[in-house]
Amino acid sequence: MTLRLYDLAGADPHLRFSPYCWRTRLALAHKDLGVETIPWRFTDKAVIAFSGQGRVPVLVDGDNGDTVVSDSWAIAEYLERNYPDRPSLFGDVSAAAVTRFVNAWADTIQIPGIMRLIASDIVGKLHEKDKSYFRSSREQRFGTTLEAFCADRDRHVVSFRQSLQPLRTVLASQPFVGGRVASYADYIVFGAFQWARCVSTFELLEDGDPVAAWRDRLLDAFDGLARKAVRAAA
Amino acid sequence: MTLRLYDLAGADPHLRFSPYCWRTRLALAHKDLGVETIPWRFTDKAVIAFSGQGRVPVLVDGDNGDTVVSDSWAIAEYLERNYPDRPSLFGDVSAAAVTRFVNAWADTIQIPGIMRLIASDIVGKLHEKDKSYFRSSREQRFGTTLEAFCADRDRHVVSFRQSLQPLRTVLASQPFVGGRVASYADYIVFGAFQWARCVSTFELLEDGDPVAAWRDRLLDAFDGLARKAVRAAA
Repeated sequence: MTLRLYDLAGADPHLRFSPYCWRTRLALAHKDLGVETIPWRFTDKAVIAFSGQGRVPVLVDGDNGDTVVSDSWAIAEYLERNYPDRPSLFGDVSAAAVTRFVNAWADTIQIPGIMRLIASDIVGKLHEKDKSYFRSSREQRFGTTLEAFCADRDRHVVSFRQSLQPLRTVLASQPFVGGRVASYADYIVFGAFQWARCVSTFELLEDGDPVAAWRDRLLDAFDGLARKAVRAAA
Repeated sequence: MTLRLYDLAGADPHLRFSPYCWRTRLALAHKDLGVETIPWRFTDKAVIAFSGQGRVPVLVDGDNGDTVVSDSWAIAEYLERNYPDRPSLFGDVSAAAVTRFVNAWADTIQIPGIMRLIASDIVGKLHEKDKSYFRSSREQRFGTTLEAFCADRDRHVVSFRQSLQPLRTVLASQPFVGGRVASYADYIVFGAFQWARCVSTFELLEDGDPVAAWRDRLLDAFDGLARKAVRAAA
């Protein structure tokens, strides 16, 4: 089994914080597949040019003729298809289809909501060669400086917490988004919390929020894979 | 087969507009189960007191010893469990678990978003005996008059359309939330659009929005069940 994953890293090469890479890390753990993770920085575009695009996660599967897969969703589908004897990430094809909705919610609501709270914390944790790239690309996207974008985060965190109401409602009925046990739907949403945890000390959730209890359960999953992950110093 | 459904109606008893009842109507159609729908008004609490609560949908299944089920989610699970030879609403138990997320999103984001756009249109379509109940209960909930609540709907519709981004993103990858074919996840989300369509002429979607094309596909499903439904005059 030779699986390699290009994984976004900070100045500390052990600091791995991408929400999308965390989805893949947990998907690999769910399937009990070992992986060699390779620290990658935003500006290392040439290093992953072989994948035909410029973002991580990129998975290289040496057991399948050096198959290269990029995009966290495509990687999850690839693992499900190519490792069918391992625990299923989705359950079945119907569940995978509906899990796309969770993926889309995380991409369009949850991650932008968290970005508003932690963007200014990220830049200080990056490798020197990435700092200006991250700042200029994000400031162009946000239309303001990182600091101004996050300045009012004590207010924005209130609407962020409200935006989690679908998740909170689900967790009132069942312990995981996937049901009785965690599935890829959980890893999608958890990946974004783990991203924040790795680069920021800003608290996203209120004490007593059932979402926080669910997050704790996933921090403990797979022998504490996510809880043991390196966090940047404040 | 004797299935009866208590179904929210307007002044016109043929006007059936509850988003939750529409979920059930489509779930029954998906399973190709005939149903007798019984018009019910908000203030007919005594009529459904046998169900132990005061809201519709309430399903009575005469073939199962007059089993009574209320709450749209519980009804979907009941139909799935008790009519296993009919087309599955979810796919499998994993898909059902994740579909809860879609249900929670519809309940906490989509339906409140639409309410802001159509609440003032609903009251005129209700039976006389329901009008003051609806107005006073909703005005208490919203903290303002129905008319004030909806006054700025040309502005609110912009953020409503933005809130549909998860749905739009899913529909860029697949024709239905359920995947290649519609599932209960679709009926959940469609039910809210059908609610609006029955009681209001306010257009929720922009021309060319892929969500509108998906809505059209569901209006046509089951021989046009939803498209043929009675709409209130403006």
